[in-house]
Amino acid sequence: MIALSTDDFGLKAKVLTEVLPYIKMHRGKTVVIKYGGNAMQDEGIRRMFASDVVLMRYVGINPVIVHGGGPQITEYMRKLSMEPSFVNGHRVTDSETMEIAKMVLVGKVNKEIVSLINRHGALSMGLSGEDGNLIMAGKRPSEDGADLGWVGDVEHVNVEVIEELLSHELIPVIASVGSDEEGNSYNINADIVAGEIATALSADKIIYMTNVKGILDPSGELISRLDAEGCSRMLANGDVSEGMIPKVSSCLAAVEGPVGRATILDGTIEHALLLELFTSGGVGTMIVQSMDDLLEGE
Amino acid sequence: MIALSTDDFGLKAKVLTEVLPYIKMHRGKTVVIKYGGNAMQDEGIRRMFASDVVLMRYVGINPVIVHGGGPQITEYMRKLSMEPSFVNGHRVTDSETMEIAKMVLVGKVNKEIVSLINRHGALSMGLSGEDGNLIMAGKRPSEDGADLGWVGDVEHVNVEVIEELLSHELIPVIASVGSDEEGNSYNINADIVAGEIATALSADKIIYMTNVKGILDPSGELISRLDAEGCSRMLANGDVSEGMIPKVSSCLAAVEGPVGRATILDGTIEHALLLELFTSGGVGTMIVQSMDDLLEGE
Amino acid sequence: MIALSTDDFGLKAKVLTEVLPYIKMHRGKTVVIKYGGNAMQDEGIRRMFASDVVLMRYVGINPVIVHGGGPQITEYMRKLSMEPSFVNGHRVTDSETMEIAKMVLVGKVNKEIVSLINRHGALSMGLSGEDGNLIMAGKRPSEDGADLGWVGDVEHVNVEVIEELLSHELIPVIASVGSDEEGNSYNINADIVAGEIATALSADKIIYMTNVKGILDPSGELISRLDAEGCSRMLANGDVSEGMIPKVSSCLAAVEGPVGRATILDGTIEHALLLELFTSGGVGTMIVQSMDDLLEGE
Amino acid sequence: MIALSTDDFGLKAKVLTEVLPYIKMHRGKTVVIKYGGNAMQDEGIRRMFASDVVLMRYVGINPVIVHGGGPQITEYMRKLSMEPSFVNGHRVTDSETMEIAKMVLVGKVNKEIVSLINRHGALSMGLSGEDGNLIMAGKRPSEDGADLGWVGDVEHVNVEVIEELLSHELIPVIASVGSDEEGNSYNINADIVAGEIATALSADKIIYMTNVKGILDPSGELISRLDAEGCSRMLANGDVSEGMIPKVSSCLAAVEGPVGRATILDGTIEHALLLELFTSGGVGTMIVQSMDDLLEGE
Amino acid sequence: MIALSTDDFGLKAKVLTEVLPYIKMHRGKTVVIKYGGNAMQDEGIRRMFASDVVLMRYVGINPVIVHGGGPQITEYMRKLSMEPSFVNGHRVTDSETMEIAKMVLVGKVNKEIVSLINRHGALSMGLSGEDGNLIMAGKRPSEDGADLGWVGDVEHVNVEVIEELLSHELIPVIASVGSDEEGNSYNINADIVAGEIATALSADKIIYMTNVKGILDPSGELISRLDAEGCSRMLANGDVSEGMIPKVSSCLAAVEGPVGRATILDGTIEHALLLELFTSGGVGTMIVQSMDDLLEGE
Amino acid sequence: MIALSTDDFGLKAKVLTEVLPYIKMHRGKTVVIKYGGNAMQDEGIRRMFASDVVLMRYVGINPVIVHGGGPQITEYMRKLSMEPSFVNGHRVTDSETMEIAKMVLVGKVNKEIVSLINRHGALSMGLSGEDGNLIMAGKRPSEDGADLGWVGDVEHVNVEVIEELLSHELIPVIASVGSDEEGNSYNINADIVAGEIATALSADKIIYMTNVKGILDPSGELISRLDAEGCSRMLANGDVSEGMIPKVSSCLAAVEGPVGRATILDGTIEHALLLELFTSGGVGTMIVQSMDDLLEGE
Repeated sequence: MIALSTDDFGLKAKVLTEVLPYIKMHRGKTVVIKYGGNAMQDEGIRRMFASDVVLMRYVGINPVIVHGGGPQITEYMRKLSMEPSFVNGHRVTDSETMEIAKMVLVGKVNKEIVSLINRHGALSMGLSGEDGNLIMAGKRPSEDGADLGWVGDVEHVNVEVIEELLSHELIPVIASVGSDEEGNSYNINADIVAGEIATALSADKIIYMTNVKGILDPSGELISRLDAEGCSRMLANGDVSEGMIPKVSSCLAAVEGPVGRATILDGTIEHALLLELFTSGGVGTMIVQSMDDLLEGE
Repeated sequence: MIALSTDDFGLKAKVLTEVLPYIKMHRGKTVVIKYGGNAMQDEGIRRMFASDVVLMRYVGINPVIVHGGGPQITEYMRKLSMEPSFVNGHRVTDSETMEIAKMVLVGKVNKEIVSLINRHGALSMGLSGEDGNLIMAGKRPSEDGADLGWVGDVEHVNVEVIEELLSHELIPVIASVGSDEEGNSYNINADIVAGEIATALSADKIIYMTNVKGILDPSGELISRLDAEGCSRMLANGDVSEGMIPKVSSCLAAVEGPVGRATILDGTIEHALLLELFTSGGVGTMIVQSMDDLLEGE
Repeated sequence: MIALSTDDFGLKAKVLTEVLPYIKMHRGKTVVIKYGGNAMQDEGIRRMFASDVVLMRYVGINPVIVHGGGPQITEYMRKLSMEPSFVNGHRVTDSETMEIAKMVLVGKVNKEIVSLINRHGALSMGLSGEDGNLIMAGKRPSEDGADLGWVGDVEHVNVEVIEELLSHELIPVIASVGSDEEGNSYNINADIVAGEIATALSADKIIYMTNVKGILDPSGELISRLDAEGCSRMLANGDVSEGMIPKVSSCLAAVEGPVGRATILDGTIEHALLLELFTSGGVGTMIVQSMDDLLEGE
Repeated sequence: MIALSTDDFGLKAKVLTEVLPYIKMHRGKTVVIKYGGNAMQDEGIRRMFASDVVLMRYVGINPVIVHGGGPQITEYMRKLSMEPSFVNGHRVTDSETMEIAKMVLVGKVNKEIVSLINRHGALSMGLSGEDGNLIMAGKRPSEDGADLGWVGDVEHVNVEVIEELLSHELIPVIASVGSDEEGNSYNINADIVAGEIATALSADKIIYMTNVKGILDPSGELISRLDAEGCSRMLANGDVSEGMIPKVSSCLAAVEGPVGRATILDGTIEHALLLELFTSGGVGTMIVQSMDDLLEGE
Repeated sequence: MIALSTDDFGLKAKVLTEVLPYIKMHRGKTVVIKYGGNAMQDEGIRRMFASDVVLMRYVGINPVIVHGGGPQITEYMRKLSMEPSFVNGHRVTDSETMEIAKMVLVGKVNKEIVSLINRHGALSMGLSGEDGNLIMAGKRPSEDGADLGWVGDVEHVNVEVIEELLSHELIPVIASVGSDEEGNSYNINADIVAGEIATALSADKIIYMTNVKGILDPSGELISRLDAEGCSRMLANGDVSEGMIPKVSSCLAAVEGPVGRATILDGTIEHALLLELFTSGGVGTMIVQSMDDLLEGE
Repeated sequence: MIALSTDDFGLKAKVLTEVLPYIKMHRGKTVVIKYGGNAMQDEGIRRMFASDVVLMRYVGINPVIVHGGGPQITEYMRKLSMEPSFVNGHRVTDSETMEIAKMVLVGKVNKEIVSLINRHGALSMGLSGEDGNLIMAGKRPSEDGADLGWVGDVEHVNVEVIEELLSHELIPVIASVGSDEEGNSYNINADIVAGEIATALSADKIIYMTNVKGILDPSGELISRLDAEGCSRMLANGDVSEGMIPKVSSCLAAVEGPVGRATILDGTIEHALLLELFTSGGVGTMIVQSMDDLLEGE
């Protein structure tokens, strides 16, 4: 990366001026960010992510972070000599696994993100879906005859807690764990939790930080803009790779609901969030309800 | 326990009427409860504890719960084939131990308490000392030449977060983990955290739930009321058993500061909290600044 | 009644725990209580009533008390050598009678209730229907050719005053006197005033404290639960005793309007209010819009 | 009085313009008015009083009305064949007398004032000293060996209730009855209650409406302005007529405390309040802390 | 004008009492006043206007003042040797003229009004349509083939700014200048601006202060009350003099919209505003939606 | 200036990240900016100034702009064939000159700044010292025997108006005109007005935008940092050029009062404000109370 010397003062001012219209456009907006994948592994990328989120907050955007932590759960299970098993991509979650999943997500991954952000000040609060009954969940039905155990589906999101934190200019960091009225905990796919929270908040934007560049067309080229109809067609035609299906489906559900835009981007790009928000092209694939929305808003 | 039949209607009303003056006395007061020890192990006692706390909230008291979880940490360390070691009662905490401690305290113990309370409604929020920079800590100096690792001392408590939750009639449940400005986590004695939080909140009362009946006199009799001077003398004379020193010292510091009263009681007594708050004798040992306070307030 | 000795600690806690679900159910609810009859005469019952109301307030319920005071008015008239006369149960109210009625209701009965409650703290405020134009009234038409004088019907209730008091956690105690825009005062049946206020407040519950056990079936047995249809049928069939007609009609109107439940109970039962609110069976007769409501709410 | 014809339009505007500086001077100020004496007897004067108070409220002044009602109490006692007796001007008040006093003051006189004001809108609320524990009182010691019964002295005024009403632009009308913590009622001299309330409110002004022109000098001339020192000297020299002593003493205590000015005026002058507030000379006698205050403020 | 001597005390009180019902009627109402014409030229009339507006504010009315200043603009243009030209009553406004118009309206006329009012206290704030983007405008189309230059039409009024000032009991004084999103300024007819602001505020009343007595009937008699239909007919029949057309059209649009009443009066009558608001007849011509409104409201 | 191509994405993110600590440092701070000199003349620089101020607002800084407009006043006087005259740098201000000064400052210069800012949204409000009696002033005494006419000194600043605007996230733009209680207007040196407003607001920083690089040492080198003592010594020694004396004196008074820092910089540098706030070196000369402050804060 290029070093900025004293001579770059003019350049710095120029950059800030170019960013101004984007700040104006996003001020006061709520942006749900599904944080995950490789962007979570590399220490340098994690620090950048944290400072990008703080900058968003400082220019008046309301970021809400949702995270899972599959690889970290697997790692701890291995330490404890437990063998993870999966059905259709869902981790089969017995009670012992659930306990470990919760410890890893809430006690480790969540607090790491909170810590990185709070090095810039008392800016974020970590939440599990159990706190204030934030994420009410129910048991996911068996798939292919296999009982998934404590794998859950979101039944209701109590957004008041999130809205309260946002009104105090705090950044909610939410682990993808839910609970039911009996106090049982559920392990829920974080992509889906992020989508449900964005919908419940009527967020302006949802951003999925992944390991891939975005949605690719059959020739392997990145699709930069996609409308709901096109997105729907690709899912129907099987043009979306299997690992991407939950993200793409959640994006589609979000923009067909009250969420303005959904973006899938490569979280390992340095400052991917800033580029997405503060440059004209953005990065990754943006999905909108219809292409007409795109014209008026941007 | 006695079953209440329909005939007990009059009895029920009588009990409620007798409780009224105590409710009046405690309404609007903030009570910090150090929850721990055996009261945390037995499922039945835990459920009682949760319903007692909910009842406190319902009659207008502001409970704040602080907890540790030493035995649970040790249990997980053993599962991972790690051997705990202690110096002067402090767990020597290397980075790996700290990670496990945090996972157990924040991701397991804390959420269990939150879940038990929230079965009565969206009533509690779990917090780690890292959330909103609630507990700012520093490294505890070496003791007896031994580096304790990530064992910390409380340097500052940001009570705004707790006060905000109380003002929304929520019950804060706080794990005894702190952090510094670089984002390092510290394992802190929960007895001390509870005392510091009570002091920072200028709480009306702090209650330590332990495995013992209270402070005993040399003949082994329970001391029911003790003033700061007497408490101080007992500590100086070595009349307090070693395991009780942090609790008794914290009690003393609290009542010499802004906290009205400090009580040490046996958390395994059924409904110990209710008995302490809603009967004339209370249970355990109550420490006050001076015996004069006792006369006017109760 | 049974004396509670130290041994009853466990019992006390048990009772409180049993009461918890009822507290949860009623918290934040507004309950209008028509206070009257014999429950007003006996000093011991009056004190119990006051402490029951304070307890309701303390556990988060919003009580609103409405009262008349027929016997007390008659007593004062007799002292002044005036002979009360009634038409269809309405006191014929000439100007002199009206003045006495107002003095007795507002200056004597109302303040007695306020005083009893305020012995527990600055908890209640007495109101006449003239204060803040709370109860706007008009003259009731002649009945059976007899001019009833200053007997009134409720035309409008200005609930803002009541709501303001409730929002400050005060207990409104309201005398059944109304006024018109020219400043004339009216004597209004307190059963009707209570029903109108409950309706205007969209109260959750109205409780009539009477001298009878509740509504009886033709065989003289107490009916515990009754739906609007059944209640309506009983009124039509003449199965309701004459003195009970205004109460039963007001109950019916209330539950056919926005009020959830209406209960008629014997106010001379010790702690009748607590039993009604905090035991599963309740006492007296509860009238609901339909039996289905009963299932879901209780 | 002169009739205003259409030709008087210019005159009307001129009067309003002349009044403007006085409105400016009094806006936002709290004025306690002791209402009593003959001004309470004449129907026409009473209506004027009520409309003057409403006008005060409308131009941004906060009026607080305090009243007694000695003659009305005596009248009712006579109707009940009771013989009033007095010691040093205090009505000897046994329990039966107290009950009647309360009924007359709270149930009759107070509501008459409230009604007259509320004919202009929902503008006033009547209060007894028992409401919200507004006036806490204690028993007045025996005088000249005679037990005065339930005659009280003010011990504390809970001004929050009054301030709350004023903040909602309501006019408090307060009967001079107090209570103690056991719920006993006391009959208190309304001149003294007015002074205590003005002091507790740190009112800007207190006005005593009486049957006399004001304080007279030895030659019988009205004294228009008097400072605390002069007032004190007159009381010491016995230059104040006996019936005026409580009023003059209360005025003195008020201006030696936080109250800016105290005025004694003849309440039977038509629109005495408006003349006092909105003309340069005022009417009656104004007492100030020192003559220097007078120069700067007016 | 008649001088008021001490003897006039009774008269003063009588006038105030007569004014009371009008104060009651107008309290809390928003009244937009188009200030202009000769009422702006005479120093004495200007001071009266200012004190009338202050009195309105003091009795609880929310006045909003809108002004132009054609003659003053013309005067300054002449000083700068520029020749004003008009098309259909619109000043042809090139850039230089616009600059002068803005300086005169915002920097001179507006501040003169603000100063006169603020001599009574910190009561008013001057605003141009550019402040807070209060008046968003667009270019008015050519008329009779003549480009009018920077003459504008109101496109949108951002009433939040005005409402904020009113909620702080401040009097907004608004110069009839607007701007577009590119920051261009427009000269807009003040009669029209006043009407648009009254409509955007849903004001209760709009008052046009002019040089004429009001709307005259064909025989030259003042029409005192006129409904929308009659007004519309007069405009259609050409019964309204040319100079009055913008005012009368704005009145009609206002009452056909959410504004209750519109009055055209002679601003040179001494205290015209007070006479209009506080006498039964008012002065000038009042236009209402229908004559029925008139009956109920006044 | 360098054009940013798509390749510069990384650069953009890098600049934003570098700016983050400065945003953190300045968030929530109030910065008074004296805008003037050549920075006001050049259209491009003016647009930059406006967008810099908007960016400040967007990142959470509270900018308050104070301006004069000497050259523009002179220009208009010349157009009107009036000859400006000066005594010790003060414009001799007769009534006609005052009128023109006000028109130019309030009606032209102020609105130009407001317009430029509001092209980015409804962000700023223009104020003259007369609005809400913002700047109360008195006549400046004669200098060298010459009566300066309506030249004023600041006597009091009513900061509530400014604070209210800031609390609504609006940018106050203030013309350096004051008024006295009789409504006379005064022409006041804008450097002094800016200093007085910064002091009254206890602003964190005041920035003077001038035509010079800053304060120069005797050898003509820019002094980058200066403490109050050094600043005071330079003024005493005559080391400050005459035109700079009011600015430097105001800076000194500000930092000796409650204002944290005062900076004099060259307003014609592109984006001078951004460079001052968001780069480590800043531009121009910064004056602090003592050099110790500098160490801790920056």
